[in-house]
Amino acid sequence: MSHYFAIALGCGSKNHDDNWLEVYYPDPTLNPDSRLIEVIREEIGYLGGNAAIELTYRQIQHLAREWRDAGYEHEASYAVAFQESQRPVVITVLETDAEPASTPEAYLKLHLLSHRLVKPNAITLAGIAPLLPTIAWTSEGAVDPDELGERQMLAQLEGRTLSVRSVDSFPQMADYIVPSGVHIADTARVRLGAYLGEGTTVMPTGFIDFNAGAQGPGIIEGRLAAGVFVDQGTNISDDPS
Amino acid sequence: MSHYFAIALGCGSKNHDDNWLEVYYPDPTLNPDSRLIEVIREEIGYLGGNAAIELTYRQIQHLAREWRDAGYEHEASYAVAFQESQRPVVITVLETDAEPASTPEAYLKLHLLSHRLVKPNAITLAGIAPLLPTIAWTSEGAVDPDELGERQMLAQLEGRTLSVRSVDSFPQMADYIVPSGVHIADTARVRLGAYLGEGTTVMPTGFIDFNAGAQGPGIIEGRLAAGVFVDQGTNISDDPS
Amino acid sequence: MSHYFAIALGCGSKNHDDNWLEVYYPDPTLNPDSRLIEVIREEIGYLGGNAAIELTYRQIQHLAREWRDAGYEHEASYAVAFQESQRPVVITVLETDAEPASTPEAYLKLHLLSHRLVKPNAITLAGIAPLLPTIAWTSEGAVDPDELGERQMLAQLEGRTLSVRSVDSFPQMADYIVPSGVHIADTARVRLGAYLGEGTTVMPTGFIDFNAGAQGPGIIEGRLAAGVFVDQGTNISDDPS
Repeated sequence: MSHYFAIALGCGSKNHDDNWLEVYYPDPTLNPDSRLIEVIREEIGYLGGNAAIELTYRQIQHLAREWRDAGYEHEASYAVAFQESQRPVVITVLETDAEPASTPEAYLKLHLLSHRLVKPNAITLAGIAPLLPTIAWTSEGAVDPDELGERQMLAQLEGRTLSVRSVDSFPQMADYIVPSGVHIADTARVRLGAYLGEGTTVMPTGFIDFNAGAQGPGIIEGRLAAGVFVDQGTNISDDPS
Repeated sequence: MSHYFAIALGCGSKNHDDNWLEVYYPDPTLNPDSRLIEVIREEIGYLGGNAAIELTYRQIQHLAREWRDAGYEHEASYAVAFQESQRPVVITVLETDAEPASTPEAYLKLHLLSHRLVKPNAITLAGIAPLLPTIAWTSEGAVDPDELGERQMLAQLEGRTLSVRSVDSFPQMADYIVPSGVHIADTARVRLGAYLGEGTTVMPTGFIDFNAGAQGPGIIEGRLAAGVFVDQGTNISDDPS
Repeated sequence: MSHYFAIALGCGSKNHDDNWLEVYYPDPTLNPDSRLIEVIREEIGYLGGNAAIELTYRQIQHLAREWRDAGYEHEASYAVAFQESQRPVVITVLETDAEPASTPEAYLKLHLLSHRLVKPNAITLAGIAPLLPTIAWTSEGAVDPDELGERQMLAQLEGRTLSVRSVDSFPQMADYIVPSGVHIADTARVRLGAYLGEGTTVMPTGFIDFNAGAQGPGIIEGRLAAGVFVDQGTNISDDPS
């Protein structure tokens, strides 16, 4: 029996002040085996509770080795891939489903929803808003808006196009995960933390907030605000819900 | 007199199983001269009927030579350009306007509409839906959704931004062709296979499906569903048609 | 006392006919010191009035030196950065707020609004439309629509994705400037020349035209047409204004 709520290995962006802007987790795990954490506990300095721990290259190597030795081939393969990361790497361990306490924890909760591991309204998201910094989502990744002007000027002078798609505390889900069997006409309209069940089609007029979604199959032409989860076969037409 | 419906030289994307995802045709020809096909027939192994034939580098060279020798300078210049293609090259010959039978044939029909060579409702599009695979349209091109997760992880680890604009069986028209004399506020809202006549303006609330469009000039602020074609000077306001 | 309306150093794009398509000004100045212009007047051949003067590398070096010598450290630092420009560089001097007479002048006026240096309806924008050429706004920058087809074909053959976001005479504001303290759900819906005051949030259904905007703080869910400027605390809902 698991004593942990969730665990995930991720990489992300930081601003010049070394604060996390956002974190990507390719393979979050709900209710992981306790041993998955226990074999690495000492090496990563995990003291229990909910924690996001930035890892050195050496520590990532250690994870890969320990997990493989303990028979967790799948997890080990991700750790091997993360040895090549050009960006800061973090392991986030949630012992309980408490209110998130950091940006990496907040992003893990959003990933759990979009990876279909939990349904809207099923996990604690209270207090998440201040943990999600406003970000300029650009063609060169997440940028702190305070650092955007200088980045834009350099790009313009070099003739590169640094385009900004949105300035928002929530990213587009599809830049992190596209779950199987869905259609999304305009990915700008589905936030990370949305739950799109198999067979969900989001039309150009649809919009799905975080902690909202559809069981699928179904067609979403209107707005699903946070907290709204629609049943199988429900088609939402172009009226605000 | 022509005995053929259409011909086009294109290049496109395939998934890991070697199936076509999409095909781009820069210069499709309606009712081509029969000789254009006859001079290359043997070399490309064309046996008549409707066919999409993938070409080797040698065969593309052959096309360029034969077409130039036969006086088709324009077509030959495209064949010369296609010798440099880094992507698979296909020649698609439609002897008749029969139902499309492959992804390259389906894409050629969509191109005929957006290149203004035929009008909505004027060609056979029955059976096209299953020939258009669902694709993740990304900043690095068309990706099979089943192959997206791994591509995204590698990009994230390398710090590249692989952004996904839509997950849809139809591409955006403007990534293939922008016909002359049009304005499109948001290209996400015009599908390949739309017909935008000279002087058409598509506002941010407009949407034009494949096999739909406007004679132009005119302003489109609402939705033109497949099969809808509006006359010159018609302005479509922001109500679903 | 200043005798000038505005001045700015910018870089931009031209088409094959050497006509300006668009100009980016990172730091436009309203009511500049007269001396800022007088110390460079002779070197750049400025004869008074409103003018956009393309600069050689030598002239940009001169600007940097003269401005530093005259104690304009801030302006000099931009001139130093512009020495590295890979794109054509222009200095635009507006002695008066007359009707714009060239594309660089038109773009400077739009920048003044989006940089919050002037409010909507406060400057002369008459005659601006014909000075803003229709542009294909692509992932590789501004492209003349007449030159797009060839660019697209080369990109497709090379397997690069040259995506087109809009075909419009107005660019997206966020590709030029994101003013402080704003949220923009979809940057495609805010044109350069929009004025977004501190604390403005533009929702997915919002749209802000040039010479329109909001004092902020406030939430914009509907359309602000050119000439509309809403007060502090006004929330615009999803109905056309």
